[in-house]
Amino acid sequence: MRIVSLAGGIGGARFLRGLLTAAPDSEITVIGNTGDDITLYGLQVCPDLDTVMYTLGGGIDEEQGWGRQKETHVVKEELAAYGVEPQWFGLGDRDFATHIVRTQMLSAGYPLSAVTEALCARWQPGVRLIPMTDDRTETHVVISDERGRRAVHFQEWWVRLRASVPAEQIILVGADEARPAPGVLQAVADADVVILPPSNPVVSIGTILQIRGIREALEAKTVVGVSPIVGGAPVRGMADACLTAIGVETTAQAVLELYGSPLVNGWLVAEEDAGVALDGVRVEARPLIMHDVESAAAIAGAALDLATALAGITGTGTGTGTGSGRAGQSDAGRDEAAR
Amino acid sequence: MRIVSLAGGIGGARFLRGLLTAAPDSEITVIGNTGDDITLYGLQVCPDLDTVMYTLGGGIDEEQGWGRQKETHVVKEELAAYGVEPQWFGLGDRDFATHIVRTQMLSAGYPLSAVTEALCARWQPGVRLIPMTDDRTETHVVISDERGRRAVHFQEWWVRLRASVPAEQIILVGADEARPAPGVLQAVADADVVILPPSNPVVSIGTILQIRGIREALEAKTVVGVSPIVGGAPVRGMADACLTAIGVETTAQAVLELYGSPLVNGWLVAEEDAGVALDGVRVEARPLIMHDVESAAAIAGAALDLATALAGITGTGTGTGTGSGRAGQSDAGRDEAAR
Repeated sequence: MRIVSLAGGIGGARFLRGLLTAAPDSEITVIGNTGDDITLYGLQVCPDLDTVMYTLGGGIDEEQGWGRQKETHVVKEELAAYGVEPQWFGLGDRDFATHIVRTQMLSAGYPLSAVTEALCARWQPGVRLIPMTDDRTETHVVISDERGRRAVHFQEWWVRLRASVPAEQIILVGADEARPAPGVLQAVADADVVILPPSNPVVSIGTILQIRGIREALEAKTVVGVSPIVGGAPVRGMADACLTAIGVETTAQAVLELYGSPLVNGWLVAEEDAGVALDGVRVEARPLIMHDVESAAAIAGAALDLATALAGITGTGTGTGTGSGRAGQSDAGRDEAAR
Repeated sequence: MRIVSLAGGIGGARFLRGLLTAAPDSEITVIGNTGDDITLYGLQVCPDLDTVMYTLGGGIDEEQGWGRQKETHVVKEELAAYGVEPQWFGLGDRDFATHIVRTQMLSAGYPLSAVTEALCARWQPGVRLIPMTDDRTETHVVISDERGRRAVHFQEWWVRLRASVPAEQIILVGADEARPAPGVLQAVADADVVILPPSNPVVSIGTILQIRGIREALEAKTVVGVSPIVGGAPVRGMADACLTAIGVETTAQAVLELYGSPLVNGWLVAEEDAGVALDGVRVEARPLIMHDVESAAAIAGAALDLATALAGITGTGTGTGTGSGRAGQSDAGRDEAAR
């Protein structure tokens, strides 16, 4: 089965790890958010792409959810000793190497999609990871503070200010000109189903949906989303601060309405949000907290089961809950081996 | 007293530390070699400038003579894990930060001389360190190996091949177009004396002398050189391999002749080379091995004493050997404090 998933950072990456566990024989293409990307010290940093790559490739700091495991911070300390700003973004030494390689390849003229593929050659994430666009876009947040009303980079609002200053507006700079990266629209067209993980609906999924043609391509497919809001609060992160900025309530219902019916066909909510409903959308309630890989796999499997059911696909089950699912996978595995 | 010194890497840096000890109240301008500079992983590395900066600023790996003390190598290991080449150049994590800052400033349009000044603001080397040129030059070495006759970057010959393959030719690419960095010619014009440390006469001092106008400016001054060759062998490094490449014998006599008489007025040799002589040059024999800062200071002090004697300067002695020197310094110190 061919699955396309959109993804932001930590939540998306953990969900995808569950999806890989639930559907190990699927061909998964991940369209990654690059709106959070930031140039630091002359190096191009792609936090969301890297979080997906490190998480699926076994290099993530599990505790933190981002960055490399067994990380050290010598370079950052030295940059601070030189007085270099900003000092609020925590790049570790191992992580620096990724940004150095990426920046060098970008400088040599490779598009970000090719660079990401090259980096993934090391990490072997088990999915095809494509940035939403090769063009430069950057999420900026309009805030008002003692320096007046001004736009700051998303990371400055998110990391330095910890979203404590209200976002008055969230803008994806460059959205009008950006085109989907090569392979994005084709992957969507070829997909049997599309899954939206419980990533931030504004600055992760919402950002990807702003890239010309991606929303339209998705509307033609069977799309199942997993609510990032459980009982009126984000599963993790500060999605509420982003939703408030665009005038959307922090509820599973409001996020479903934000995505809307032509886009989403199925919607997975937590059991306490079982009353959520929208015309044309099949809503199912499940436990939605990802404690570990197993619980993430159960959620991803449920989303996939709902998607395949909606798409009328049979015999490609995910092995979550239904015996037939596992059988289907085993057959696929044997076919593969016989070639 | 105003002193100008040319400098390569380790030997030059250690000599300069001695010079600072011997003449602490002098105003020392160091013209640094940048022919060894190399772009690695998209970062601009200036090995000789950094060796001088780290040595005089108290950050050098004393054992090794180059790179930072208490260094770690996480970034390098990660780059290798990505399969990035070259892997034969040993950049440590602390050192990486220097190259990141430098590269970012160069990318922003600052000339290397301004970048070096900014880096030195942290290190406070106690001298004014100016690169020989802000223009790009690069020392290449012509070798013949199993891949045929070809030019490699100096660092590839020096570090990867450890100068084991004979150098057929040593070329400073960009020498014809390069102009001295701002401040270089003025510092020479203003100098009371000029000291040539026992740096490599071909790829360090020789490189600096190739930059248009520098040799001519030096010829108008009182210049004392310290022989890098003692008893027919380099004090340190592989200067013999460089001298052979340009058809010069590895002797204190031959290096003196290489520099020549219009340039050098005084020449310090080791006691075993006491017979060295050249018309118009005053040669003195001294112990020339730098075991530690004290012995380096004794050599630098002797060079300075010879230079001041040749220049007819009195009362600005260096305090090495002559009581009047120390007295002169103390007076200067008091004058300074009284202002």
